[in-house]
Amino acid sequence: MPVPSEFDNLRVVLVATRNPLNIGAAARAMSNFGFLSLRLVNPYHVAFREARSAVGASAVLKAAEEYKEIADAVADCALVVGTTALRSRELQHTLRPLEKSATLIRKRLKSQPVALLFGSEKVGLSNQELSHCHWLIRIPTREQHLSMNLGQAVAVCLYEFSRSAGTKLSPVKERAATVGEVERITNVLLESLGASGYLHPRVSSSDAKIRRLVRRLHLQAEDAEVCLGMLRQILWKMRSHEHE
Amino acid sequence: MPVPSEFDNLRVVLVATRNPLNIGAAARAMSNFGFLSLRLVNPYHVAFREARSAVGASAVLKAAEEYKEIADAVADCALVVGTTALRSRELQHTLRPLEKSATLIRKRLKSQPVALLFGSEKVGLSNQELSHCHWLIRIPTREQHLSMNLGQAVAVCLYEFSRSAGTKLSPVKERAATVGEVERITNVLLESLGASGYLHPRVSSSDAKIRRLVRRLHLQAEDAEVCLGMLRQILWKMRSHEHE
Repeated sequence: MPVPSEFDNLRVVLVATRNPLNIGAAARAMSNFGFLSLRLVNPYHVAFREARSAVGASAVLKAAEEYKEIADAVADCALVVGTTALRSRELQHTLRPLEKSATLIRKRLKSQPVALLFGSEKVGLSNQELSHCHWLIRIPTREQHLSMNLGQAVAVCLYEFSRSAGTKLSPVKERAATVGEVERITNVLLESLGASGYLHPRVSSSDAKIRRLVRRLHLQAEDAEVCLGMLRQILWKMRSHEHE
Repeated sequence: MPVPSEFDNLRVVLVATRNPLNIGAAARAMSNFGFLSLRLVNPYHVAFREARSAVGASAVLKAAEEYKEIADAVADCALVVGTTALRSRELQHTLRPLEKSATLIRKRLKSQPVALLFGSEKVGLSNQELSHCHWLIRIPTREQHLSMNLGQAVAVCLYEFSRSAGTKLSPVKERAATVGEVERITNVLLESLGASGYLHPRVSSSDAKIRRLVRRLHLQAEDAEVCLGMLRQILWKMRSHEHE
């Protein structure tokens, strides 16, 4: 079947992957279903090198991009979705079943890039890593054995995206702020909260809390620009008093 | 989510699997989605032994059954479905996309066992192996990279069976002949064709042709019994003349 052009807008982001076979398997499933953009955040280096020789996915692996920070890996995206085996009561995020998630993601892909995050084999995505996500996907596995193998989880998600590609969807109209813009707002807000004494001292758990809060605002591109301007002005004002 | 009881009726059959990681991965996906009955036909022995230590799927692997012949591994099933990356023009069988296949298989599972066959990593299912199948599933991968990793293909199929389990289906009413019964008919027919001179000498390519033909009849259980009786009588008659 021909691959819809919006598939180019999906970034599959593997965070802190340890096993080269899993990187190779993820790349192979991407190639099978026609999602070719792979990003690796802090992969275990030996793993990445070995994975590059994986059978049948060399094009995806050759074009893969490497990042130190999640924020940079998803900066051009309008939507960041994480995957998890956890249950909703353990999470701070909205959790959506895969089938429903696929519809929402495909609507967004029609106009803007979307990142799909997979955590490390042992522990999945940490709270800090999850804080970069707008919401989370759960693959409907059974209670007694929730956690999937990484390569298989990638395959199942991409199959579902690809399967539902047959159904007609109208693209999302308004242009969402990219995560890069949202992250700039988050940082200026954190600085402002620090400068104001609201957060004192700055600890990373509150960073994550604020990051999630800003993402829940679902800022439009234009509004993001306005917010950033306001916050920068506020921060400047507070700092100018510090030196009086 | 609770696992529907009919999932117990699915036999995942791995034929001539070489890589222990793939056996382990298949078992893990089965455990994730709640399909617990695994059968191995002629696995590479080292692979099977190593796979038994796979993470998180030990119950499925411990209960796995081993067979020398496909015919024995699927004898109790009413429907045998193979998986393939080939295109329909290369095949003698009906090829159905996974989503449609899942509906048909789940209807049958409500009343009788169904076997889902996966071939070896290198070559998939051979023509001889395919001849045991009623029809075939194709996972909708893209033209440039059709062939999936074995463990990922198992995961995607079982996800789709499990996903569609939410939708209401009425079970198939009539009781189909088991593949064991159909195989007995096939064998007596082959003997009869040999005895009659229609097949002379018996070569395995015609065996496969006849095996496919008999499966296309979709015999009901009662009819299968009648057919077997007729053929046995015919064969006896032909043989009794040989000795005159």
